[in-house]
Amino acid sequence: MDPDAVAKAFVEHYYTTFDSNRAGLANLYQESSMLTFEGQNTQGCQSIVAKLTSLPFQQCQHAITTVDCQPSGPAGGMIVFVSGDLQLTGEQHALKFSQLLED
Amino acid sequence: MDPDAVAKAFVEHYYTTFDSNRAGLANLYQESSMLTFEGQNTQGCQSIVAKLTSLPFQQCQHAITTVDCQPSGPAGGMIVFVSGDLQLTGEQHALKFSQLLED
Repeated sequence: MDPDAVAKAFVEHYYTTFDSNRAGLANLYQESSMLTFEGQNTQGCQSIVAKLTSLPFQQCQHAITTVDCQPSGPAGGMIVFVSGDLQLTGEQHALKFSQLLED
Repeated sequence: MDPDAVAKAFVEHYYTTFDSNRAGLANLYQESSMLTFEGQNTQGCQSIVAKLTSLPFQQCQHAITTVDCQPSGPAGGMIVFVSGDLQLTGEQHALKFSQLLED
């Protein structure tokens, strides 16, 4: 399968899960995963999900604008750079966001 | 040295070079480096510099807002996520940019 297509499918799955069932993101992280969110590092699947589910907004909707991917490392990994808009329920204006996802 | 400090120093050096002498970025890429710029991949130091020096603006000024870094891979590498404003000379409004740098 085309790496770009894999990256896009993963990104779609990640943000659909984020917007509909944030705790379900646990399936997409490992114990070795690290989340850096606005300068703060969180390590490990459960800690990451605790961080993401405690963000100060409940309902949100991500709209993806760009998905760029590159091969990473000798083991055939991938890094994916995502940007788009984040609409919080009840807020008039969407926020811009960008995020890096690495397998 | 603190990895955060290394990352910040590198980011400062990268964008100072970008804004003052774009061709000098050649020293910061390797033959194995890949640049993804607005969805287009470019591989190799010379090709990357050719791409960056042919962007449709001459003078620009990056102002960094955030620098987030994480360890990456078994060999002690690092990935750095940067966001900020890009002011093009002669334009009234700055653009938002975000970029990933990986060693």
